[in-house]
Amino acid sequence: MAATSLFSCSMHTEMLAPKTLKGSDVLCCPKSNFLSMKKSSKLEQMKTILQTDGIHSNALKVERAPYFSVGQKFQLDDVIEAQQFDRDILNAIFEVAQEMESIEKNSPGSQILKGYLMATLFYEPSTRTRLSFESAMKRLGGEVLTTENAREFSSAAKGETLEDTIRTVEGYSDIIVMRHFESGAARRAAVTAGIPIINAGDGPGQHPTQALLDVYTIQREIGKLDSIKVGLVGDLANGRTVRSLAYLLAKYKDVKIYFVAPDVVKMKDDIKEYLTSKGVKWEESADLMEVASECDVVYQTRIQKERFGERVDLYEKARGKYIVNKDVLKVMQTHAVVMHPLPRLDEITVDVDADPRAAYFRQAKNGLYIRMALLKLLLVGW
Amino acid sequence: MAATSLFSCSMHTEMLAPKTLKGSDVLCCPKSNFLSMKKSSKLEQMKTILQTDGIHSNALKVERAPYFSVGQKFQLDDVIEAQQFDRDILNAIFEVAQEMESIEKNSPGSQILKGYLMATLFYEPSTRTRLSFESAMKRLGGEVLTTENAREFSSAAKGETLEDTIRTVEGYSDIIVMRHFESGAARRAAVTAGIPIINAGDGPGQHPTQALLDVYTIQREIGKLDSIKVGLVGDLANGRTVRSLAYLLAKYKDVKIYFVAPDVVKMKDDIKEYLTSKGVKWEESADLMEVASECDVVYQTRIQKERFGERVDLYEKARGKYIVNKDVLKVMQTHAVVMHPLPRLDEITVDVDADPRAAYFRQAKNGLYIRMALLKLLLVGW
Amino acid sequence: MAATSLFSCSMHTEMLAPKTLKGSDVLCCPKSNFLSMKKSSKLEQMKTILQTDGIHSNALKVERAPYFSVGQKFQLDDVIEAQQFDRDILNAIFEVAQEMESIEKNSPGSQILKGYLMATLFYEPSTRTRLSFESAMKRLGGEVLTTENAREFSSAAKGETLEDTIRTVEGYSDIIVMRHFESGAARRAAVTAGIPIINAGDGPGQHPTQALLDVYTIQREIGKLDSIKVGLVGDLANGRTVRSLAYLLAKYKDVKIYFVAPDVVKMKDDIKEYLTSKGVKWEESADLMEVASECDVVYQTRIQKERFGERVDLYEKARGKYIVNKDVLKVMQTHAVVMHPLPRLDEITVDVDADPRAAYFRQAKNGLYIRMALLKLLLVGW
Repeated sequence: MAATSLFSCSMHTEMLAPKTLKGSDVLCCPKSNFLSMKKSSKLEQMKTILQTDGIHSNALKVERAPYFSVGQKFQLDDVIEAQQFDRDILNAIFEVAQEMESIEKNSPGSQILKGYLMATLFYEPSTRTRLSFESAMKRLGGEVLTTENAREFSSAAKGETLEDTIRTVEGYSDIIVMRHFESGAARRAAVTAGIPIINAGDGPGQHPTQALLDVYTIQREIGKLDSIKVGLVGDLANGRTVRSLAYLLAKYKDVKIYFVAPDVVKMKDDIKEYLTSKGVKWEESADLMEVASECDVVYQTRIQKERFGERVDLYEKARGKYIVNKDVLKVMQTHAVVMHPLPRLDEITVDVDADPRAAYFRQAKNGLYIRMALLKLLLVGW
Repeated sequence: MAATSLFSCSMHTEMLAPKTLKGSDVLCCPKSNFLSMKKSSKLEQMKTILQTDGIHSNALKVERAPYFSVGQKFQLDDVIEAQQFDRDILNAIFEVAQEMESIEKNSPGSQILKGYLMATLFYEPSTRTRLSFESAMKRLGGEVLTTENAREFSSAAKGETLEDTIRTVEGYSDIIVMRHFESGAARRAAVTAGIPIINAGDGPGQHPTQALLDVYTIQREIGKLDSIKVGLVGDLANGRTVRSLAYLLAKYKDVKIYFVAPDVVKMKDDIKEYLTSKGVKWEESADLMEVASECDVVYQTRIQKERFGERVDLYEKARGKYIVNKDVLKVMQTHAVVMHPLPRLDEITVDVDADPRAAYFRQAKNGLYIRMALLKLLLVGW
Repeated sequence: MAATSLFSCSMHTEMLAPKTLKGSDVLCCPKSNFLSMKKSSKLEQMKTILQTDGIHSNALKVERAPYFSVGQKFQLDDVIEAQQFDRDILNAIFEVAQEMESIEKNSPGSQILKGYLMATLFYEPSTRTRLSFESAMKRLGGEVLTTENAREFSSAAKGETLEDTIRTVEGYSDIIVMRHFESGAARRAAVTAGIPIINAGDGPGQHPTQALLDVYTIQREIGKLDSIKVGLVGDLANGRTVRSLAYLLAKYKDVKIYFVAPDVVKMKDDIKEYLTSKGVKWEESADLMEVASECDVVYQTRIQKERFGERVDLYEKARGKYIVNKDVLKVMQTHAVVMHPLPRLDEITVDVDADPRAAYFRQAKNGLYIRMALLKLLLVGW
């Protein structure tokens, strides 16, 4: 799909995704020819709908879900970057994610992706992310093709372009989850592919499903996304996680962000300027205890040793500076939580784990629900 | 199975594979004990049939498919080399492959291999081929065990023989798809195994499923295999693909083959002599434009840099010599097609891709249908 | 689960695992919420049962299986080491394994783990063991998440602890099969995890499923485990297989063990002392022919070259010393068998393979049944 329309929002009642017209039993047993499935353009969708009779009015009722204005419909084609989502879409995705939490083994809901095949095309290994996607697919009855060494496909090996690889793999699967070492690779894949692409991280660029699960976790843990205070702690210069999170939080009202980082890894100006332009309040602080006592969320991150090269002394100094430990817990409010994208070293001490406010393992689990939701939305629609 | 009877053709109406006698519902739910399944010998098959009553006459009707003489039956045991197939078998396989193209998601046809387990035993990685087989298996409801680093099993690691490995893996699976670095390895595996073996490439030797998909693509694109003109272009000395294709084309009538290759990678004499002995017309040409204007199929291949060692100058000279570009398209006939086994570098320019005669991505997709057909034929029969 | 209660044996008729109360159809379609499944403590199990009415008496009848005293029940939580099993449990597991041998493709029995997800978390590759587990899971209808390079997760890569990894992976799966390079890693994982852990080998420590399949094979081949004579041959110093086997054999009555090993790799004193303390008769012998003529089982093992470092001369001398060949077969009794954990080099000559007493490939296959049994017992109970 063209990157310029990663996302289409139809404004008329007639513009429903064809799959939503098929009735509920279709969710378990879609009859489309799986070997020639294409993402239809909006125009083609309209034609399909105009040719469809009888079940039309019924479908509209199904569509009038509470979180959409009557007659509006989101159609998700690819997941490329965190910025593609506005708060309505985010809320809608989160509602689906929450439904995913209560799907039971061997229930009809656990089979909605039966017959679908996901390819994990990983140009660099990321076992954690891959397992999460593969679990999500299988939890919904789908099947998986795994490639952890996709560089063999790439120009590094025999000189094939990413575009050619995508055209081949889309012949074997219904959706591609791609991890790549180059920024922008996911967008190039999405432009080429006739099937949905999910960006599972492209170099220093984007990792949108991580950003979504972070925001989802705040909503699940704190109960709201407006009027919250979030402390971002640790390596703010290099962490794409905290950068994406800042972007997404800017979509909500009355958010206050605190940056708590060692001098060598401070948050960069582009994000600060973006937040200011969006009217988001932020401040830098060197006092983790004070920030922790103020915030709803303390989002800790790992200092990335690999960014320091030979300056091990700088790394060691930065690493020890802000640790979330029992003392920090003591000043945090009862309803507040500690989050972390994992893996952690010792920037959160293990004696914090048992505290109910330690949300990082629940956060990792939320990645499963977010990915289940996205796979469902991309493959069978709302 | 013994390599000398890779293939058995029974000449009497009584000699039907037992599985074909079980009726259509058996395709979805075979009741054989999956943990002790053996390929039965023809003699055992006969005994089974003689003990079977009542449904015999019915089965015969089913068997009288149009592409077999009455009472003849092919039983496919292993897929080891392109030469094992004659044109009747090829046609029969292609008919099954074409049926595979129209199997719909979650239809009964998509479950014919439910309960079967395929092991991909790859002694050297080939993600493209592996994904194609695994997709094929899963598209038919089967399951997959993946090994991409099977050398760990091999004498290179602890000294186990291929035969011992096969005896172990056949205990865990119903069919083995094997890629090996040694010519003849697939045949050795087939001799050892009590379950079907598919050769997914053994060193410089054979890659029969690639050869099948090439011929299948010609039939699908051109509509016939007799009376065609095929131009083989590029690295004809080292490409096992073009060598296998030449072997298979020799089984058809009134075929004309053109060889268009840089001097250093010309087609070898053994193939030329084979074609002559089979009455196939061939000629060498240095004029790609003229060949392209004559041919039904222009089969382009990549010049394999790794074959040139340190003679990079020779590689660069050979590589640029014959390029399929828009100028070549202009002289090609409307019904003709460009094929390529992939991956490509720049021997076909990307501006060719949009032309409907660019068949190489459809060709890759045909690999899926051919492999689905072979898996079905080897595991549940015709 | 706490390592100190790897295994719990309830002494009252009320203490049944909840899943056993659900009736036979539940085996195919359990309705538990799969995303929040926890191993319930015995206390919680009791509460569940006390709240359950109507089907109680029925369930008790089901439970009165012949191999348990009335009202006694084993609940298997993790599989960590061979020593955790006593002979009653071993017998019970073997009965389940034998049931597994006769499960037919697409029968209800082949779907008892449908909806369950097993993660193979392998910190070092072991294709043979991994395939065996994955085949077992899929033969029972379950699904698999594969990681063969789990070291990426580990402290070696970014410094994450095993405990954190386990907490993440348990969010994605229902059971973890773990291979690790450190002795004791499986126990640490089991203490952390809320889902079952199976040790698939932890460094020089334990490989309990190999030990179970060895004992199971003796029972299947010889028909008994009491009053047998077993010759352990080859590398007895380094082979964890023979050490575990010796431990397990000590649980049976009137067992006699012969050690036949080259001088440099003799059985160590700890095992000899353990056997003596348990009243097991043993002796060392340098005469393979005499031992072979006495024994029910000749258990041959590979001399592990990697243990000899640069002393290739010592390795070569040890390696050739005790070979099981046709001459050994000649003196063996008709009912006796040759076993080997595989892979083998030439310590058993290939001309032995065709003899019906060559049990090593059947032994490998038994690994599948044992693993099927353990997966069933850990996930859905007896």
